[in-house]
Amino acid sequence: MNKFNMEDHPHRRYNPLTSEWVLVSPHRAKRPWQGQVEKVSEEQRPEHDPNCYLCAGNERIGGEINPNYRDTFVFTNDFAALNIDAPAGEVQDDDLFKAKSEQGICRVICFSPRHDLTIPQMDVSAVKKVVDLWQEQYLELGNRSEINYVQIFENKGSVMGCSNPHPHGQIWAQSSVPDEPAKESVRFKAYFEKHSRTLLGDYLEKELQKKERILIENDHFVALVPYWATWPFETMIVSKRAIQHLGQMDENEKEALAAIYRDLTIRYDNLFEVSFPYSAGIHQAPTDGIEHPEWHLHMHFYPPLLRSATVKKFMVGYEMLGNPQRDITPETSAERLRSLSALHYKQNLI
Amino acid sequence: MNKFNMEDHPHRRYNPLTSEWVLVSPHRAKRPWQGQVEKVSEEQRPEHDPNCYLCAGNERIGGEINPNYRDTFVFTNDFAALNIDAPAGEVQDDDLFKAKSEQGICRVICFSPRHDLTIPQMDVSAVKKVVDLWQEQYLELGNRSEINYVQIFENKGSVMGCSNPHPHGQIWAQSSVPDEPAKESVRFKAYFEKHSRTLLGDYLEKELQKKERILIENDHFVALVPYWATWPFETMIVSKRAIQHLGQMDENEKEALAAIYRDLTIRYDNLFEVSFPYSAGIHQAPTDGIEHPEWHLHMHFYPPLLRSATVKKFMVGYEMLGNPQRDITPETSAERLRSLSALHYKQNLI
Ligand SMILES: O=P(O)(O)O[C@H]1O[C@H](CO)[C@@H](O)[C@H](O)[C@H]1O
Ligand SMILES: O=P(O)(O)O[C@H]1O[C@H](CO)[C@@H](O)[C@H](O)[C@H]1O
Repeated sequence: MNKFNMEDHPHRRYNPLTSEWVLVSPHRAKRPWQGQVEKVSEEQRPEHDPNCYLCAGNERIGGEINPNYRDTFVFTNDFAALNIDAPAGEVQDDDLFKAKSEQGICRVICFSPRHDLTIPQMDVSAVKKVVDLWQEQYLELGNRSEINYVQIFENKGSVMGCSNPHPHGQIWAQSSVPDEPAKESVRFKAYFEKHSRTLLGDYLEKELQKKERILIENDHFVALVPYWATWPFETMIVSKRAIQHLGQMDENEKEALAAIYRDLTIRYDNLFEVSFPYSAGIHQAPTDGIEHPEWHLHMHFYPPLLRSATVKKFMVGYEMLGNPQRDITPETSAERLRSLSALHYKQNLI
Repeated sequence: MNKFNMEDHPHRRYNPLTSEWVLVSPHRAKRPWQGQVEKVSEEQRPEHDPNCYLCAGNERIGGEINPNYRDTFVFTNDFAALNIDAPAGEVQDDDLFKAKSEQGICRVICFSPRHDLTIPQMDVSAVKKVVDLWQEQYLELGNRSEINYVQIFENKGSVMGCSNPHPHGQIWAQSSVPDEPAKESVRFKAYFEKHSRTLLGDYLEKELQKKERILIENDHFVALVPYWATWPFETMIVSKRAIQHLGQMDENEKEALAAIYRDLTIRYDNLFEVSFPYSAGIHQAPTDGIEHPEWHLHMHFYPPLLRSATVKKFMVGYEMLGNPQRDITPETSAERLRSLSALHYKQNLI
């Protein structure tokens, strides 16, 4: 009988951050694809678009005028999913009908006044200003008594529900800790209580020895494909030091985060020579006024593309009703991403 | 100060099936949408397509010829994500690198030889034959010692990753219980131990009293919008009797399931007058040889559309990194679905 081997045989991998599983089917990407293909929108964008509500000097939907910002710009989302003044209240009927009002603040962060750029096309010093703003926002919002969690994220590309190509991200800060970081909190705590070290610290140490899934390393951060990655080219940026949240980062660390964020997204763009869509975001300690030695800051990247610039992975029937499934191994994905140039493919076109 | 009211104020609702939360932002669908729009593919399809690998008499990719089937037809997926003969094996390194080989069987079920139909356009008697086949397959696959869970599902529409419009569904049967039914198992068990009744039985009883979220009711089944629905028009079909799995259903119950499945999808099609895309599937008792009095069979429908036939809800940044979020209340969705005709919109065109 054959010996089990992860390159050839379907298997499940365990995600120690969420205690969930992913089904890995190594060779399934070989099946022919006759399904939906995405549009590639590679039109050349102007540096300033008079119709863009994120460009400097333009009017937004509520009538406000954006300032003539030169680096980054943050404002409250005109169609916020959360309000800070939602009246407190609760419904509780037998544990089957449970609801709770939620207070929060939603903000939009413009990464640059340049309508035509994205993170991988910006200078490290410009990306550093985005990280600076993340830090300020985390501290400002987190200091409010109503806010116990600050979720910073970016939806990039129309396939990821982004309705404006101007480089920007969002912050949704709220009174509850959302499910995903809450699951991680439970696992991090259990691990820390047992080992007196952070789960991600130990994980990173082992990954740096194994080298198989490492993509990029600098003085303070590592980018890798997690062992339990669900999306085809999912990655994670992890801090070398067990930083709990953005508020604890010094200038060098912020610069290193900016650099690796840029380096990683350059490789993403190079993979299919297209502006690579993804949702990304930072998981970090809740701002609930409690110490969180178990927490270890990291940034997840969930990109949908699988085969090409136009064919994505669909997380549908089995994935929604069973658990996520992937069609290539994380090691194959890491190898492909690692083999790409560190220079953006459009660089020599300019 | 205002009183908390779920129609106006952002709130979280608890899903007692998975112990997860959804953020409900009642009025967010009012924001303008400049993002991705889907293609509507409403071409008239032929009754038989010589190029379709699911049509009767045609050749499949592996060279096999489909029989001239008259009702339903089931075969092993030519690009299966699981194999029954995957060698057993395990990796376990410190709880951080955990993997296990997985055995399984993937099958495809053609609902009808008619290439041009979908469930809402078929007769109840034809849909009943699909339910008959589900039952047979659940029993046959579930009886195998290697199979501990049988996931029956349907991806409908290219926006849900379906690559062939021929009416069909799938079965992925495997040795592990996937995460979603495993979560439900835990909650169902805890509830049953406490109350000696099934969670969904009690939930259904209360919903039938409240009436707010009920869509359709027949002798044996109810279709409703769950209190904790995450997708805009998510629904659930629940059996009135606490049936644990398809194997326990008699002829009347199978007929009633076929009827409500058809009735619900007719309303779906009527909502935006388009063949309504969704992923749907049955959650039922594991086939692990153990009694499961806590289990209560139900069918989930996860449809992506939000505003129109072409604008879907994106479960992206916040949703992937925080928790699901919805832009209208489940009650509003129920009201809209309930107000639609029980007759298919194409009916009077024929
Ligand atoms: O098996 P199919 O129809 O080729 O594939 C479809 O359903 C599968 C099961 O939900 C998914 O894993 C695929 O991403 C999707 O495209
Ligand atoms: O806020 P936006 O960019 O309008 O909306 C986008 O991101 C949100 C947060 O992930 C999602 O809820 C929306 O579905 C998506 O379209």
